[in-house]
Formats: sequence, structure tokens, C-alpha cells
Amino acid sequence: MNSESVARELAEPNLRRLLSTAGLDVEYVSASGNTLYRQGANGEPIPVLDYAAGYGALIFGHNHPDIVARARELLDEQTPVLAQFSSHPYANQLAAELNRIIRRETGSDEPYYATFANSGAEGIEAAIKHAELDRVLRLSAVFEEIEASTRRVREEVRAGTATVPEGLGARLGLPRPAAGQDALDLLIAEIDRRNQRRRAKPPVFVALKSGFHGKLMGSVQLTHNEAYRTPFSALGAQARFVPCDHPEALKELLQDERGTLLQLTVADGGVRLVERDHHTICAVLLEPIQGEGGIRPLSRAFAQEIKAFAEEADCPVVIDEIQSGMGRTGDFLGATRLGLRGDYYVFAKSLGGGLAKASVTLVREGRYRPEFELLHSSTFAKDSFSCHIALKVLQMLEADGGQGYRLARERGAALAGMLRGIRTDFPDVVKDVRGHGLMLGFEFHDQSEATDDTLREAARSSMFGYVIAGHLLHAHAIRTFPTASAVHTLRFEPSVLLTDEEIDRLEHALRDVCALLREQAGHRLVLAS
Amino acid sequence: MNSESVARELAEPNLRRLLSTAGLDVEYVSASGNTLYRQGANGEPIPVLDYAAGYGALIFGHNHPDIVARARELLDEQTPVLAQFSSHPYANQLAAELNRIIRRETGSDEPYYATFANSGAEGIEAAIKHAELDRVLRLSAVFEEIEASTRRVREEVRAGTATVPEGLGARLGLPRPAAGQDALDLLIAEIDRRNQRRRAKPPVFVALKSGFHGKLMGSVQLTHNEAYRTPFSALGAQARFVPCDHPEALKELLQDERGTLLQLTVADGGVRLVERDHHTICAVLLEPIQGEGGIRPLSRAFAQEIKAFAEEADCPVVIDEIQSGMGRTGDFLGATRLGLRGDYYVFAKSLGGGLAKASVTLVREGRYRPEFELLHSSTFAKDSFSCHIALKVLQMLEADGGQGYRLARERGAALAGMLRGIRTDFPDVVKDVRGHGLMLGFEFHDQSEATDDTLREAARSSMFGYVIAGHLLHAHAIRTFPTASAVHTLRFEPSVLLTDEEIDRLEHALRDVCALLREQAGHRLVLAS
Repeated sequence: MNSESVARELAEPNLRRLLSTAGLDVEYVSASGNTLYRQGANGEPIPVLDYAAGYGALIFGHNHPDIVARARELLDEQTPVLAQFSSHPYANQLAAELNRIIRRETGSDEPYYATFANSGAEGIEAAIKHAELDRVLRLSAVFEEIEASTRRVREEVRAGTATVPEGLGARLGLPRPAAGQDALDLLIAEIDRRNQRRRAKPPVFVALKSGFHGKLMGSVQLTHNEAYRTPFSALGAQARFVPCDHPEALKELLQDERGTLLQLTVADGGVRLVERDHHTICAVLLEPIQGEGGIRPLSRAFAQEIKAFAEEADCPVVIDEIQSGMGRTGDFLGATRLGLRGDYYVFAKSLGGGLAKASVTLVREGRYRPEFELLHSSTFAKDSFSCHIALKVLQMLEADGGQGYRLARERGAALAGMLRGIRTDFPDVVKDVRGHGLMLGFEFHDQSEATDDTLREAARSSMFGYVIAGHLLHAHAIRTFPTASAVHTLRFEPSVLLTDEEIDRLEHALRDVCALLREQAGHRLVLAS
Repeated sequence: MNSESVARELAEPNLRRLLSTAGLDVEYVSASGNTLYRQGANGEPIPVLDYAAGYGALIFGHNHPDIVARARELLDEQTPVLAQFSSHPYANQLAAELNRIIRRETGSDEPYYATFANSGAEGIEAAIKHAELDRVLRLSAVFEEIEASTRRVREEVRAGTATVPEGLGARLGLPRPAAGQDALDLLIAEIDRRNQRRRAKPPVFVALKSGFHGKLMGSVQLTHNEAYRTPFSALGAQARFVPCDHPEALKELLQDERGTLLQLTVADGGVRLVERDHHTICAVLLEPIQGEGGIRPLSRAFAQEIKAFAEEADCPVVIDEIQSGMGRTGDFLGATRLGLRGDYYVFAKSLGGGLAKASVTLVREGRYRPEFELLHSSTFAKDSFSCHIALKVLQMLEADGGQGYRLARERGAALAGMLRGIRTDFPDVVKDVRGHGLMLGFEFHDQSEATDDTLREAARSSMFGYVIAGHLLHAHAIRTFPTASAVHTLRFEPSVLLTDEEIDRLEHALRDVCALLREQAGHRLVLAS
């Protein structure tokens, strides 16, 4: 290796510089459970308690011995990692096991078909591609009906069993046919022109304000954060963002997108013009608890409004369980708490057990398009390694009658209790504690009007949460971050292995932070980093 | 696990049924080198010689002992797989090593900055997002210049040091100002209207016919295959596809996309209207050898035309090295043979060593936007596991003064020699042998006018290549597939470990296939499966 080139930072140096301003650019050399070890100045490992936990991807912590053992077995067995276009029994097992668990939680027997991908964002893109294929195929079927109906009308008119009533063209704004013009031809041409114009309208995706669904070319358009999304708005179909708990916004949206397709039929010997409802809403997406948006649980009432909206729009509800799923909230599905069954589910993060990169998109049978399997694929996806690791994670969650979920609930309640206790003692500093199970957010009051210069400047430059994270890391050897789009909220998403002692350590650290904020001792928060 | 749900196929059952029609739905239980082992009827493993090799993702074969050993080491060391937002020295080392190798092959000292992803398609999407950010930022800079110039013009006119000449508005089709209207205001409004209309034009991506760049929401629009692309055309920005070796198509495209932005300036006391060239071409993408398009090498001459086009359009050349890179063609870069340096490179497939999921997108310094690092990220990407595995693969390629490349060249020449020998003996059956190094295609003549019913039907239903693949698998225990978009071409992309004996086995099998095709013995080709 060339020492000169190693010296130069070529892997996101700008990001690293930004992290360094808050003291966050430390090097981790190993990891185990809820602990990452950083390199100390004299080479000794310094344990750091990890509450960020791979942005919620580590439901069993770093390098869980059982998952590592399964990975070793797979290596020992020379598992056929890349064997595309063959039978993949492990993928089928994974799909079956996800189905079994979802059936138990939702109480519905309808099966879900699985598509495999390599990351959560890829899983979302598979879901959207599937929804769009479904929309396009359904629309094609409607157009076939309209065209078949037109053919029948032509035949009847030609046979003299039906006539075009005077004034039908005028309803479409057509002038009276000139000499040599056929009234029916003119009507059909105008109807086709109007229908094709509607058909060409781009699909609309409905997503929620503060929602996050990934950063690939298409999925970034479904992510509300403007900084991430708007530079790329020309690259993908647009979403319409609806604020949570505003059902009237859903109704307005449906109204806005409504239109009609025109169809000719014959009734009582006369040609009739029929209007068919049509809209271009392709799918509605939601996170049961918004992760990057600040650990914001969706309300049960609004979830039901979304369900009603999707039924009326006849579009699928895509439940993004990438961060909230896999037991994190205390159920397997974050949506179980909402009493909401998805038409689609997307899983990733903890599905990979902290070692593999895995994502599964499920589509329920009633909305599934088998054609999709021939259109979508990925070299790395559906591989034996990630499927077997994912099966191991499911097995661990389900063991002993669902020990994973019980732990997430019980440990989550202990952690939430502690966080709420701090809020009670520091209502001037802590604005809110939110979340369920091991997906918790701890929101500070905005400091952009703080008397302390350091704090005020940090808040105004959106660095406040990172400054706190830097203090927690250097003064208390605790790792966490603000959520990506709500930078006053710290995320706490540890593994189910969380101990009382680890909760105590966090309490001590957060009370220190809150005391410093109450004192407006910004210099001491920053100096420690 | 519930036996009923396991019995039901929930992981792409339709795809599996299609594979089963050609006998391709076999189950592989382990893999090593160029061999996959399937489960025999009595439980014994049956070795299958793998020429598909993970669609070119296995430059060192399945489960190479050195790569597996590195994976075990990483597990033993408890590598911190998911440690986002920290220092990632391994990622930096990987970027540096890729730079060192590319510098050697291209002879250019300009560094490339790395962005990390989880699959080739994600790497392409990162490249396109970066190119679009760059386009949008450059366009903003042009608009700032135009607006600054407008402000200066206003000041000079107000100060009386410049006047608006009679007839300037008429050049833009404006009527003479009415009473109370200001000529300059009208001009500025009209210029702004025209400029904003140009600004709103969507970006154009230039890609090649038969090209393949992935199947995510955006990248699928850059993939030429209509079956994959057109159902989703409303989801992403559109590409314009240019046929290979048609430089005039590039010139036409540039001409089509050309337009102007208008700017006001002052010269010699008069307000002048200046036209600035403008187009919306965002990037041009190419594969040095088209993989899914039928293993079609780009010609050196056309590569130079693309380079000239990109220079004139001032847009980046994105070289998709996902399949052709990592030594497969006998150089590290497939583009080295073309004498073409990329502004961007995308790597994946073999970068993961057959175990990890890794992708790197490189952007040369002169075109790099550091802002991108704050906009793009992925939970799973830049992880220590995949970076260390990728470093191991690079080390193995580079060992002993580039033994990986030498082997790819030498083994590739032996394999290509054998394939060309068959073509010489069966010119009536074999249309072409193409490719470089260990990326070879073997094209059969079209059988859609065959006298044999089975062959004719297979060819007409695009199943011909899969029927041949089924025969090779069942009669000869050899695995390969047609390329995805050119189904008369079989792909041969084995690892550098390929032995003479393995080449002989393939020769024997292909001569059998060619003899059966010459005899038009379709029933014997199909029966064997």
C-alpha cells in the first residue's frame, strides 16, 4: 500500500471533518453486545456504550455470539452464497417464517410473497416498483375494457342497432360535425385524447411529513427531509407529503388527484358517455414509528385514517418496518400496536443480524403480481448467507415463546422510565420522551434562543444534537446521535441485551448533560469533546 | 417452523416454475472454487462446474480459502461491522488502494473520492445522484451570474450610464412597451420566463443500447432492456439510448439537447442580450464490455467518441465496471483496453469476494462535490466487514506483481481459444465468440426458423438459451446462463482458478450441444433436462 495515498483521505473526508468538529470521528476497532471499543492513545481499547446500535440495526447487539457462530458454520459448510437462478430453499424458509410470525400478529391468513434485496432503501424501491407495475397493469386492464366497449359501440352503430344522440359531442365541447365527418369518429378521437392525457399523468406517492424511506434515486423522493430530497427532485417520481394526524389532508389529496376516464356504451339503442373514476395514487407509505424524523410514533387513529384512505384510493399501504420491525418495539411488527395490517411490508436493518446485508419486501397475495419476479432481481440478493443469518435472527426472537419481544418490551420500559424520570426533573431542558420498546427518542428544548453563545450557535447551525453526542462520547463513553431530520432529538435504540447498569450509566450521563444545559454551560459541553 | 407454510412457495414461486421448465431449479448445498454442489437424489453431493460464477461476481471462485480465512479473522476480532458516523480507516484504505491501482493503469495522478454502497445498482444510483447534484449546482452558479449581471444592468440604466436600445424587446418577440411600462422590466421578465423554462427541463442521461446498469427505481431507466425498463418509466428520469459505434447519434443527441440561456449585459453604454449555451445532459454511462447485453466489448474508436462527446457536453463519463472490473478482463479496469479514463467508476460484484456485499463509486477530484457526503448515506454501507473483504480481494489480485490479472488474461486466452475452435468447427451453429479475459460470450445462430419444432419454439419464446443451459446442467454438470438481454448468447465468466481440465469439460459439453443443434435434435437437448 502506498503510504502517500493512505495519508490522503479519500473516503468522505468532508463528512469526517464535520464529525471531527463534534469530536465524533473516533476509530472503533472491535464491538461486542452494546459496546464498541475505540482505540485509546496508548493502544488500549476504550469501551463505549452504544445506544445508536447501527441506527437500530442491532436488535441483538454487535457480534452476538450465536449469530457469529451461525456465520462461522456457514463458512465451514461452504454455503453457496451466490447461486442465482436456482432453487433457494433458505429464501423460501425465510419467507415462510416471516409469514408465520406476521400471521400470528395480524390474525390474517392471507400469505405474503417475498422479494429480496440488499438494503432497506432497495427494499423500498422494490415495493414501489411492484406498486407501480400493479398500477400500470390495472390501468391497462381499464383501457382494454374501454377499448372493447368502443368496438362494441362501433359495431352497433354500423349495424344500425344504436345511434349517436344529438348533443353528445357538445358535452365534450366538440363542434357539430362538418360535412363528411363522422360524429362517432370525432367522439372516439376526443375521448381517446382525454383518456391518454389522464393516463400520462405520473404516479403519486403519498408519504408522511418527517418520514424517511431511504436515499436511492427513487426512494429519496419519498423521504421528507428537503436537504436530502430536493437536489434530486428531477430524478424520481414525486411524493405528496401529508402531516401526521391531519386526516383532512388525506381527503384533500384524494380529491385533488381524482379525475375521470371516459367510456362509450350503448343503452336503449343510444350511445352513452360514461365517466369512470380514475386517480394516479400508486401507494401510501408509512413508518409505524418515524425513525429519522425524531422517533415519532404514528397514532392509532391516524393509522386507521390511512387505511381508509388506501381503501378508497384502492392503493396499497406500504409499511416501512426497516427500523421499527424485527421486535424493536416489543412486537415483531411496529404496526401491530396500530392495529394496521400492511399490503406490503419492508424489512432490513436487524434482519441482517449485524453481520449480513439483507432486506425482504412482502406483498400480500391479493395485491401480488407474479410477473414482478421476472422483472426485478439483484446479483447479491436472495443469497444463502444473508437468508440463513436472517433465519437465525428470527429464531432468536421467537425462542422461548418470544423472548426477544418480551425483552424489548421489558428493557424498553426500564429505559423509557429512566428517560421520563429525567424529563420530570428537567422539564426546562427536556421537551419530550417518545417511542416504544427499544426505539426511544429524547427531545431537548430548542436552544436557538439560548443565552449561552455556544449553545445558541450550535442550535442555529443544526449541530446541537451532535455537540451533545460529542459530550456523551468523550465525557461518558456513550455513543448515540440525533435523528437525521430532527436534530434536537437523541435516539436510543440499544439491543435487547441492555442491562440495568447500562441504563444507570446513561442516566448519569444525561443528567450531567441536562444540568449543564440548565446552567447554560455550553463551554463545558463543548470542551469535554 | 410451520410445515404447511414451508410447503408453500413464497419466495418468487413464478420464477422458480419458469426455471423448472428448463430444469434449472436445482438446489445447491455448497460451493468451492469453480464448483457448486447440488443435492443428488440419494443425498450425495453432485459437483457442477460453474461458468456463471455469480454473474461475474466470483473472480476468485466460491468460498476462496484466503477470503474465507479473512472473514473468519474478522469474526474472531469482533470487527465493528456497523459503526456509522465514526472514522472508517478501512474504508479510507480501500479508497486509497483503488486509487493506487487506477493511477497505475490510467497514468493519471488525479485522485478519486469514494462513496460506499451495498450493490452495483446502488453504486450506479450514487453516481447518478452525484452527477445530478453537480449539474444542479453548476446551473445554480450560471443563474447567479445571470442574475448578478441583470442587477448591474439595472443599476447602470438607473444611473443613466446605459440605455435599452430600441428593438431589443422585439428580438424576444415582445410588443412595444405600453404607456407606464418599463422596457427593461419587460425584458427581464421575459428573459427570466425563458430561462426558468429551460431550467425546468429534466436531466438527460445518455446510455448505450443493450446496456445494463441495474434495476432500482432510477437505475432501471438507464438499462436498455425494455421489458425491465418500460413498466417503470414513470418512476425515474429518462435516458436516451445511443447505438454502439454510431458516433453520429451522439452528435444528433447533443444537437437536440442544445439550447440557450439569456443574459443581459452592458457594452458601450448599451444593454445587450447575450445567449449562453445550455443543455441538460447530466452524464453518459457505459460498460467497457456490455455484460447482460451479450458480452459485447465497446470499441476503442467509439469509446473515444464518447469521450469527445462528454467533453463537448461538459458532463461526466460514468464507467460501469461492476461486471468488467476487478481484473476480469485481464486489467483491473475493463476500460484500460479502451484507453478511456472515467470521471466516475462504479465497482461491485467481485469487490465483495463472493462473501460480502460491497460497492464503491469513485468520482475524480475535478468533478467531486464534497457536499454530496452530507446528502447520501446507507446504514449498511462503508461497513468494516465488506471493506476488509474488498481489501483482501485487491491484495490477492495485486499479489506477485499482479498475478490475478495475469491469470485472467492467460486463462481467458485458453478459454477463448477453445470457444473459437468450436466456432471454427460449427460455423453453422455458432455465430460469434466475444469478450476479453474471463468475460466471454458464445453466441448461437438464431433458431427461430429452425426445422426442429422444439428448437424453433424455444427460440421464439426467448427460452432457447435456458434450454441449452438446462442441457449443459443435466447432461454435463455445467452451469451457465444466457445473458439477460441477449438470450442466444451464453456467458462464460469463471474464476481465475480455471483449470485446463475444466476447459476440456466445457469443450466436450459445447461440442455435444453444437452437434445436437446441427442435427436439429431438439428432443435430445430438452429430454436430457
